Amino acid sequence: MGKLYGIGVGPGDSELLTLKGARLIRECDVIVVPRSGQKVNVAYTIGVGAVPEMKDKNIVEVDMPMTRDKSKLKEAHKNAADTVEGFLREGKDVAFLTLGDPAVYSTYIYVHDIILERGLEAEIVPGVTSFCAVAARLNEGLTEASEGLHILPASYEGLEEALKLKGTKVLMKSGKAMGNVKKLISEMTDKESVRMVERCGMPGERIFNSLEEIDEDASYFSVLVVKER
Amino acid sequence: MGKLYGIGVGPGDSELLTLKGARLIRECDVIVVPRSGQKVNVAYTIGVGAVPEMKDKNIVEVDMPMTRDKSKLKEAHKNAADTVEGFLREGKDVAFLTLGDPAVYSTYIYVHDIILERGLEAEIVPGVTSFCAVAARLNEGLTEASEGLHILPASYEGLEEALKLKGTKVLMKSGKAMGNVKKLISEMTDKESVRMVERCGMPGERIFNSLEEIDEDASYFSVLVVKER
Repeated sequence: MGKLYGIGVGPGDSELLTLKGARLIRECDVIVVPRSGQKVNVAYTIGVGAVPEMKDKNIVEVDMPMTRDKSKLKEAHKNAADTVEGFLREGKDVAFLTLGDPAVYSTYIYVHDIILERGLEAEIVPGVTSFCAVAARLNEGLTEASEGLHILPASYEGLEEALKLKGTKVLMKSGKAMGNVKKLISEMTDKESVRMVERCGMPGERIFNSLEEIDEDASYFSVLVVKER
Repeated sequence: MGKLYGIGVGPGDSELLTLKGARLIRECDVIVVPRSGQKVNVAYTIGVGAVPEMKDKNIVEVDMPMTRDKSKLKEAHKNAADTVEGFLREGKDVAFLTLGDPAVYSTYIYVHDIILERGLEAEIVPGVTSFCAVAARLNEGLTEASEGLHILPASYEGLEEALKLKGTKVLMKSGKAMGNVKKLISEMTDKESVRMVERCGMPGERIFNSLEEIDEDASYFSVLVVKER
């Protein structure tokens, strides 16, 4: 029986893949990448940038639709798990590439849980999160000493309250909600510094150094950092 | 003039170093590691495990005392920055190794800021955080969909309130405060699942699967995950 490895390939720059992730891409028989709906498959591009010989492997795209429709999501996760299970039962090891880290807002984790429930073997290989890469790009720390760090998806229930928390707030996956996110932050005190990186480490990367600058049409790959001054 | 690279070497396993971190360790003339006060220097061990030829480089230990005495800390950071500046002015590139990610509770970031203030060049190279490695070790995700992720040092002011936040809470650097942390969590509802990994990926690693199991004398390298069920 093969084993599934959920590999966090980091946020965009191929060089931010870990040594372990690169080794496992080399060693696995099958490479699964989520179909992103974009022209260029980001996870594939990162993987092949780090391990060029990956392109000659068996590359399998699975559907991971960006929808909030729970029954559609559930079906997509089950289908992806079925695909993975097929390879595992053929005795093949599978590397499932996922952006950032598999434990932090990845779609991979649903497939991981299904594979474990089915009594098969699965391992998470951690990766660099988008917010750590964004801090590096901004050339500054996120948190010091006894400060808290709050990672908040824009769809977080109670975002307005959460923005009042002490410490640094990181807003992920704002995408379509950017207008609302900007409005909520503008209603805060002006003691905060607000910066954002769109498509960190990828082509088309943009940096915004104030709330006013931030483009409301910024892509899904945007990470916004709200720091106390 | 040389350049300073603050390299996040990840939480313990040498294989969790990034390709970029490994390349820069190979390319830099000088490797700076914080003196940890422990018998074995953790950052050195991780670096040399990933890049064996590192041992033949100029390895420089700097003092990074674990104290809350602000004047002592400030002096230590200034001294470390002076050491780094000396090498940069000799035209040497410096790799400063730091555990986890440089932007998340690292002591490196103080040196980074001083070097930038002095008009010298410094770059952050992101790494895998301890809490991502801990989630991988526990073989489960930290957050899904619209949940929040709250990273809280045990010394966080208002920890009791923060534990009531929706989503997943990660308690870092509990160490000496473990007794108090256990007490606060035990006073919460019993709807939460509590797990902890001590020394993740390092010798002496221990996993605790409930609040009751957690050893109050666990080391500084302990990460506690409180999840809603």
